[in-house]
Amino acid sequence: MTNPLVFHFDFSSPYGYLGAEKIEALAHRHGRDVEWHPMLLGVAFKTTGAQPLTMVPLKGDYTKHDVPRSARFHGIALNMPGRFPIATQAPARIVLWQRERHPESCGELVKTLYRAYFVDNRDIGDPDIAADVSAIAGVDREAARAAVDDPVWKDALRREVEAAIAKGVFGSPFVFVDGEPFWGIDRFAQIERWLAEGGF
Amino acid sequence: MTNPLVFHFDFSSPYGYLGAEKIEALAHRHGRDVEWHPMLLGVAFKTTGAQPLTMVPLKGDYTKHDVPRSARFHGIALNMPGRFPIATQAPARIVLWQRERHPESCGELVKTLYRAYFVDNRDIGDPDIAADVSAIAGVDREAARAAVDDPVWKDALRREVEAAIAKGVFGSPFVFVDGEPFWGIDRFAQIERWLAEGGF
Repeated sequence: MTNPLVFHFDFSSPYGYLGAEKIEALAHRHGRDVEWHPMLLGVAFKTTGAQPLTMVPLKGDYTKHDVPRSARFHGIALNMPGRFPIATQAPARIVLWQRERHPESCGELVKTLYRAYFVDNRDIGDPDIAADVSAIAGVDREAARAAVDDPVWKDALRREVEAAIAKGVFGSPFVFVDGEPFWGIDRFAQIERWLAEGGF
Repeated sequence: MTNPLVFHFDFSSPYGYLGAEKIEALAHRHGRDVEWHPMLLGVAFKTTGAQPLTMVPLKGDYTKHDVPRSARFHGIALNMPGRFPIATQAPARIVLWQRERHPESCGELVKTLYRAYFVDNRDIGDPDIAADVSAIAGVDREAARAAVDDPVWKDALRREVEAAIAKGVFGSPFVFVDGEPFWGIDRFAQIERWLAEGGF
């Protein structure tokens, strides 16, 4: 029972950001690590027919109200970015590139990128900004910037997203605990009990 | 601060059922009552472009797994009905009819109807079955059956649904606490804190 928690997220997802801020403490309370999997929700949305939440009538207005309230509820800083949603290929490729070399430092990189977007309103969809921000997390800036345009990491992200959808991932955050799927930060209480009791 | 919790739900919504089983205890812990508002999600879905959850690719399979797991998590009996989703005009009209006469007994009626569908697999979308089940909750069977076909209660339900959508209701359960909107049983922890602290 030492599998990591498999954490899928999209950098444009505010609930993914809230989840990223909480998942490591949750995992560590139960002797687990976190495996970080950047996702492109837009690709999954083509399968489910979904749209970005904020663009849906009624639900969009609710979501714009619920996101900052949920951040306050969880005690996490959040300022909704001016530009939303954004394309997240650039930070996602940097995370894949870093994960292969230093998986243990991925959490810090993911949280630094997320905070740049959801606290400091920096457009991490821009490859140069994604590289600048990654440098704050201790990553080599130029190497990170090069990874964004490298066909190796473009292809790795394509395969990562395809594999996630094949596993049933359609939202963010989406967590697997020993294969058991949990969608949403709303399910973290269920994850907590699942880890404590080995299922329920 | 003695407003009731305004609880919107669709009888075909399994999460609405779980919410109905929990909302009264939650309200009473904070000196509140519950005001019951049956909803027709299909009408809201025309506005939001949503489909019944179980019919959405990927999300549907997840939901079929999450519903019974969430029921276990909350300690609530649930057997997914063979026929799902169903049209819920019949039980919704009976609730509106009963609410006008005996609002204090609405909770018992709603839970009895929900349990008939989500525990005992009875098709409460059928007006005769909805009336039979309502009788279990102490309601006059023939009067309840007549209310289903009465233009007064048909019109009342139409207005009820329109008013809910105008307030921004697009899912089930959907709860207002002194005007503050909370969607989903996933937000009950937030409702609890909102009631305890008067907002956050």
